[in-house]
Amino acid sequence: MGVSYHGQAYDGWQSQPSGRTVQDRLELALTQFTALDGISTLCAGRTDAGVHGLMQVVHFDCALDRPETAWIRGTNRFLPPDIAVQWARQVPHSFHARASARSRRYAYVLLESPVRPSVDAGRVGWVFRPLQLDAMERAAQSLLGEHDFTSFRASACQAHSPVKQMLRVDISRRGAYWRFEFEASAFLHHMIRNIMGCLIMIGSGRRPPDWMAEVLAAKSRDAAAPTFSPDGLYFLGPVYDESLNLPTRTPAFDWLP
Amino acid sequence: MGVSYHGQAYDGWQSQPSGRTVQDRLELALTQFTALDGISTLCAGRTDAGVHGLMQVVHFDCALDRPETAWIRGTNRFLPPDIAVQWARQVPHSFHARASARSRRYAYVLLESPVRPSVDAGRVGWVFRPLQLDAMERAAQSLLGEHDFTSFRASACQAHSPVKQMLRVDISRRGAYWRFEFEASAFLHHMIRNIMGCLIMIGSGRRPPDWMAEVLAAKSRDAAAPTFSPDGLYFLGPVYDESLNLPTRTPAFDWLP
Repeated sequence: MGVSYHGQAYDGWQSQPSGRTVQDRLELALTQFTALDGISTLCAGRTDAGVHGLMQVVHFDCALDRPETAWIRGTNRFLPPDIAVQWARQVPHSFHARASARSRRYAYVLLESPVRPSVDAGRVGWVFRPLQLDAMERAAQSLLGEHDFTSFRASACQAHSPVKQMLRVDISRRGAYWRFEFEASAFLHHMIRNIMGCLIMIGSGRRPPDWMAEVLAAKSRDAAAPTFSPDGLYFLGPVYDESLNLPTRTPAFDWLP
Repeated sequence: MGVSYHGQAYDGWQSQPSGRTVQDRLELALTQFTALDGISTLCAGRTDAGVHGLMQVVHFDCALDRPETAWIRGTNRFLPPDIAVQWARQVPHSFHARASARSRRYAYVLLESPVRPSVDAGRVGWVFRPLQLDAMERAAQSLLGEHDFTSFRASACQAHSPVKQMLRVDISRRGAYWRFEFEASAFLHHMIRNIMGCLIMIGSGRRPPDWMAEVLAAKSRDAAAPTFSPDGLYFLGPVYDESLNLPTRTPAFDWLP
């Protein structure tokens, strides 16, 4: 299933005793729709509290045979207004939402304005200092390729290795809104929010573009900027082999600047 | 002052005994910032419950002399996260936020998708049937110019006259999102939401484009489609004489599709 959600009201993706997580709400809705107990889902990428999902992907095993549209409508009937299943597909048994993903994509949306967000509160990060595209693009270059991203890794990170492959960093803007798009083999906990903190330091001229390479080389969390706000972070989804023929976007992709 | 807000949490613009309106929150913040009692604001266009403002404009009289940036920052300190003052200007005593406005602009944002909104719940209207641009553009033509808009007027409407001048209806789309932009001398209560209901009937082929002119000519609320959802409606703000030299947009204009 491909699932979209606005993360502001939830304690992140992963199931918690509080029950206030996106996974908890999805599994509850699946249980209500199927009238089967104990459907447990496995996701492509867990998102933190306040982070949004444009196309989270989950897989689960279920003996129930229903048309794909019935899975979508039936589950959405039991989901809150800020979560919706976008698509459902039967997949080969070998498919694994996380392990089958070749890479993951995230976007960070940032409002550059003297005044804080309001209409878009909880949906964008915010900087009041003007940012320089050139400086940020030069800094982003040093992130491309395979690196030990320890400097951008939260202490709570459970990944086996801090070595990841950064495939793409695209920076664009539409008026007052910046969009940073990242694609990597996988991301460490808080990795994008820590990178964003550094890119903003560089974009606003408080650090030179070369600083990014220094932070990366330091392999120490103390070298990087503070973790930036979750508000502007959107999980765009995993990238699977084309042969699986799964959707690669949802309508909400057109909503982002 | 130019003010932006997300309307979902409020009982509309205009002050109510509940205190849960944007005007109530703004006047409370002004009182807290100025430490002066009884600042009462007058707005360019009252918005309904659930409707958003990208640039509401208010005026008020106040003996206090502060720099414009102090008015912005000082008031925003006491406003909730979904409301923010975007600009403040000292204006001639003859200025009146409503009466000085030559016209008003609104945008309606609509998601066309088989699946209901989620990431953007409360921020967009929703249609699951595909819409035809041609049919809607032809229907919109009959709204241009001076008309008696009684067919699109809510029974609670307090306007002196149902005759208004429609200056512009622009329809565009970005992927799954449609944007309808309206400019008129003034709008009746629920006028855009009632027009949207009709445009969608026509766009989805359930009525022919000529039906809009018939509805208009009927001068009866019973002739039109049901009032459409407030979720996708944004007040873009009033249009004043250029000689006043007031801002004509806010950063959030760049976020809309």
